[in-house]
Parts: sequence; C-alpha cells; structure tokens
Amino acid sequence: MPYRYLHYEELVRFCESVFEAYGFREEESRQIAAVILAADLNGIESHGVQRMVRYEKEVLSGMVNVHAAPRIVHETPMSAVIDADNAMGQVVGQQAMRLAIDKARAVGCGMVTVRNSNHYGIAGFYTNLAIEEDLMGLSMTNTEAIMVPTYGKQPMIGTNPIALSMPADPIPFTFDCSTTVVPRGKFEVYCKRGDPVPIGWGIDENGADSDDSARILDNIIHKKGGGILPLGGSSEALGGHKGYGLGVICELFTGILAGGVTAEQIYKTDSGSGICQAFMAADYGLFGDKAAIRAEFSAYLVRLRASPKAAGQPRIYTHGEKEYLSRIIRREKGIPVNEKTYAELKSIGASIGTQAAPFPQEV
Amino acid sequence: MPYRYLHYEELVRFCESVFEAYGFREEESRQIAAVILAADLNGIESHGVQRMVRYEKEVLSGMVNVHAAPRIVHETPMSAVIDADNAMGQVVGQQAMRLAIDKARAVGCGMVTVRNSNHYGIAGFYTNLAIEEDLMGLSMTNTEAIMVPTYGKQPMIGTNPIALSMPADPIPFTFDCSTTVVPRGKFEVYCKRGDPVPIGWGIDENGADSDDSARILDNIIHKKGGGILPLGGSSEALGGHKGYGLGVICELFTGILAGGVTAEQIYKTDSGSGICQAFMAADYGLFGDKAAIRAEFSAYLVRLRASPKAAGQPRIYTHGEKEYLSRIIRREKGIPVNEKTYAELKSIGASIGTQAAPFPQEV
Repeated sequence: MPYRYLHYEELVRFCESVFEAYGFREEESRQIAAVILAADLNGIESHGVQRMVRYEKEVLSGMVNVHAAPRIVHETPMSAVIDADNAMGQVVGQQAMRLAIDKARAVGCGMVTVRNSNHYGIAGFYTNLAIEEDLMGLSMTNTEAIMVPTYGKQPMIGTNPIALSMPADPIPFTFDCSTTVVPRGKFEVYCKRGDPVPIGWGIDENGADSDDSARILDNIIHKKGGGILPLGGSSEALGGHKGYGLGVICELFTGILAGGVTAEQIYKTDSGSGICQAFMAADYGLFGDKAAIRAEFSAYLVRLRASPKAAGQPRIYTHGEKEYLSRIIRREKGIPVNEKTYAELKSIGASIGTQAAPFPQEV
Repeated sequence: MPYRYLHYEELVRFCESVFEAYGFREEESRQIAAVILAADLNGIESHGVQRMVRYEKEVLSGMVNVHAAPRIVHETPMSAVIDADNAMGQVVGQQAMRLAIDKARAVGCGMVTVRNSNHYGIAGFYTNLAIEEDLMGLSMTNTEAIMVPTYGKQPMIGTNPIALSMPADPIPFTFDCSTTVVPRGKFEVYCKRGDPVPIGWGIDENGADSDDSARILDNIIHKKGGGILPLGGSSEALGGHKGYGLGVICELFTGILAGGVTAEQIYKTDSGSGICQAFMAADYGLFGDKAAIRAEFSAYLVRLRASPKAAGQPRIYTHGEKEYLSRIIRREKGIPVNEKTYAELKSIGASIGTQAAPFPQEV
C-alpha cells in the first residue's frame, strides 16, 4: 500500500483539534495526541493515527467518557489505585504515571494501578516519561482476551504488553512487547494480503496450530474459539507456557491489583471497556551511585550492540534503539500514512468541520 | 535411565551433613539443602541433588567461600545491596530475601540486590518465601553467558530466570522461567540421547539455526560461538527479540543494580563466579483489601484452569501447579534419582566418611 509522508507537527495539531472537537479539554487533547503520535514517530504504525477511527468510534459511542473524572480510591505513600471513570486511557495513563513518578521522587518507588480505563496506546510512552525524570519506569495494560492459555483453546488473556524503561547513554533502554507471540495487528496485515501466517502465531477453534490468518481472525472476532498464541508458541517445547505466564502476570498487576476485571471480562461489563493498567517508577539510586549505575548499564548495551553478528546480519539492536532512530528520521521526513488511513483522517476532519486544524501537508 | 526413589527426609539430612562436612555452619547447611531438595520436590531434577557434584567442585576448588561474610554495602528503608563475599548463593539468597521481606513488612516493598554471589538454585524457592508471609515475591539471577542476542552469534546474556510468586488459593501462583527458550540442561539431555534438538533452541558458531545438540553444546563449552536462543527463537518473526529483552532486564536488575558483573564477565573475574541476584517482596495490600485481591486472583486462576481445552489436551495448568502437585507426591513416594546421580551421591558420601548422615533409603 502506498504511503504519504505527513508533516509531524501539523499532524499533532490536527489530532489535538479532533479531540478538542469531541469535547476533551485542551490539555487532555494534547495528552491523547502525544501518545498516538509517539507511536507513529517510533515507527509503530499499528498504534498511531491509523487508530483515529477506532478512537472516534469509542468516543462517539460513549464507550469513552469525554467528561470522566478519574479519582484515587486507595493510596499509600508508595502506591495508589485510580478509578478512571472510563476516561481515555492516554489521559488517565499520564495522570497515573505522573503520580507514580511523584511517589518515586518522594519515597524511592511509586506504583499506581488504574481500573475502568480504556486503550492507552503504546505502553512504552509512559515508561519513557520516567526516563525523562532519570527514573526507571514500568507499565502494563490488559486488553480484550485474545491469548489462549497453553493447552487451551479459548482466549482468556489479553495481548498484555509489558514495558520497562531504564535511562542509558546515548540510547535509552525501552522494552515494550506484547506477551503474545505477535499482536493482533500482524494477523490483520497478513489477512489483508491473503497470506498464511507462520505456524506458531495462532490456533484454530479446536486448539490446533493453524496458518489460516482469515479463519483465526474470523474466529476471534466472532468468539468461536482459538486465538493468538503466547510468546513461545502452542506447547512447552518452545516455551509457550512462559509467554502464557507473563500474560497472567500482566493480568495480576492490572486487572487484579487495580480491583478491576481480567481480559475475558473486558467489553462485557455494563459500562465502559473495563481495561486496566499499571504504572511504576523507581529511583535506581536506591541501589547506589546513579551515575555509576547508568554508565555501567550504558556500557553493557554498547557491548551487546558491538558483539559479533550472525552470518548475514548487519547489526544487533538494543531495545528502544529502532524507535530512537525512527524518531529522529520521522520528525524531519514526516509520518508515513497509508492511503486507507489518509482517507480516514480526511473523513474525520470533514466530519468535524471548522473546528479541525488545517489538514497536515505532505513533506 | 532407571530411577531409584529415595526417602525425602533422609536425603535432606544426607545433603545437610555433606555441607556441614565442607565447613558450612549447621544453619547454612540446612539452607543450602532446603533449596536443592525443593527443586527435586518440585520435579525440577536439573536443579536438585544431581547438582551436588557441581557444588562439591565449586566448594572444594574455593570458587565458593565456605566462610563468606556477606555484608550490606548500600541501604535505604526499601532497598539494599549486598556484597556476598562469594558465599553459596542459597545462603546469601535466603538472607537477601528475608531482608526484602522485612522491608516489605516495614514500608510495603523491599528490593535487595546481591553481587559476588554464586548459583542459588531455583529462583522460585525465594519467591515462595514471600508467599509464606502473604506477600508477592520476585527474584532473578544472571548466569554465565549462554544466550545470544537477536541477530548475534556470541553469548552475551545468561539463561536469566525470572520468578514471580503471588499467594492464591488453593494453589499459589509461582512463575519461574528462564528467558532462554530452554535451559542448558535440556541440551545436555538431548545430547546424551544423541537426539537432534528442535529448530529454535540454538544456533551454531555462524549464528545459523541448528538442530545439532552435540555441536551447539561443544561450541558453548569451548566458547566457539553460537549458543541458546532467547525465548521466541532466532528472529523477530516468533518474538526472539522479546526473550532477548527479558534477558537484558534480568541483567539490569542483577549485574547492574547490584554493582556486579553482567553475564559475559561471569567466571572471568579474579575470584569467585561474579553471579548476581535480585530479590523483591511487596505487600499487595498496597492496592487495597488483601482478602479481596487474593480471592479475585484465585478465582481468575480457577477460570484459567477450567477454560476449554485444545483437542487432545486433558488439562490446563497455572504456574506453580505442577510443582505443587509434585511436592505432595514426592514427599510421600520419594525423590527419583537416576543411576548416575545415585552413584555420585554415594561417592560424595564416601569421600566425607563418618561425617556423612546415613545414606538415604529407597522408598
């Protein structure tokens, strides 16, 4: 599919104007657009402006509460639980991470869980906020059930990404990965192309390995059974039970410790999606001299990148490096937007009318 | 290989007597034997009494300091860094986890890192100590480098297990998994049998996928390149970069935050192995009513186990369940010990002579 490269700053302003038109306050609109555009800047198209139509639907249907008033329902010096009142995940997410950071500054570590939230975009956005404060950051979210437990055939766990950031020079470390072998978006791409998916990505309604992207996706949508496999695949041979366990850990830190719901109950409650998140910040100075720790970790990442390459492989990346490089390029060269997304953005702009900021120019 | 079933309590006493004969104090010997036998009770033969010959070698060679005096080199109300003075990992590990638990009791969360340690057995032993105190537990260790980074061909990361425990009824949740696709012991088993390993477990000295168990193992031993793959395999297609990142996170929490060394430097320092560990305990009451949280998590684990099974699969396990069941059976039916290990234990007993407790009876 051909791509157009849209001016980054103009795309930010356009998205902000859309959320303002929906009724979000100026600051909230800025927060939401910041997370969405961070995904595009990072090269993670699946979580970028191609999701604007989805957010439009969630806002206009009332699934997302535009006038939400998240409130702290439990608090200690190092922890808090927030009921998000069905807020946009990006808004309450930044509020929760800021609270975790404040607690980490005050007592060394802050842990905040959020219930009754919504999709919050890329988990790594929030952990990178901790890096800006020279802290470690951790974030997780549960999602609608799509991962089958090892030896099961019904989705019981979300894609459940886990993100962890740690300051390092010159390139910060940001691990941000779903605990499924791949996220749902990958199936959609293969399905659109009419291609089979690699064995190890999904199982059919009987729980058998399958490469039939269309069938697996249709089963997921119509809840006929089958789904995406945990990181490690369908059996214990390649460690599928490990990805399954990491997914459960994510449910523990989100749905359970937030007093919310687990993946199989998301989008099944009376109001809102029920999605839950967790945010942590920790001062690595808890373990000694920060400059020394930061230097040691940076040096280890350099050794990893410099270590001998497999035949035919030009380089070894550390986590967050590709995104770091992508940000530099895309700020200048623009955000690649495919024709379908381009048309969707045009349509959203038209529906908002005069409230919309000028449509972003091509670079 | 045929197995003999040895009386559990007698095997514990025998191992304790061996460590006392090496010069460890009575309490230390009890601590070491407890971790080793916990592995056998849990059904994790690789980390059980079959490792006694390895520990014998490490103690007699002086790699392990029998008279070590671990000391706290940095401390805050919720954190500490311990220099283990090359102690047995099982001894300093229990000391460190107890300290983390004390801190969690005092301020809600305790995080203790340890440098200049040694192998500490199964990570889940330590996190289960937190469960006994109705706390969440987390533990990690780095190990000698054996995992290759994605697109690399030189081991730069250990097998780096991550363990996390959370109380639940009737079966506690204990996730305890290496971040490699399989631990080294699995290669040894396939190699002894003369069988090829599944593609996705290891790469050869050129960085290419290989099923040649003997060659991969020989390469690892003689540091010719190649090694074990991260969870997810050799490329990003099945998520190899995720296992690689989890392995790096483990190095961060152990080698880096303990002020020690990372995997590629283990067994290369002037004295001791250099292995590092991390221990955390957290009161889940930080997030609300403990009884309610525990009940919700227990109910979710029950739903996972009860969810529909894939065709031909009789059951779905949750993490820690197999070990929980194994403990019940093996306490009564004895610990299965293969002929090779049986002979090794006999030999260790003979070398110690009159200090050895009676050799364990078969059940």
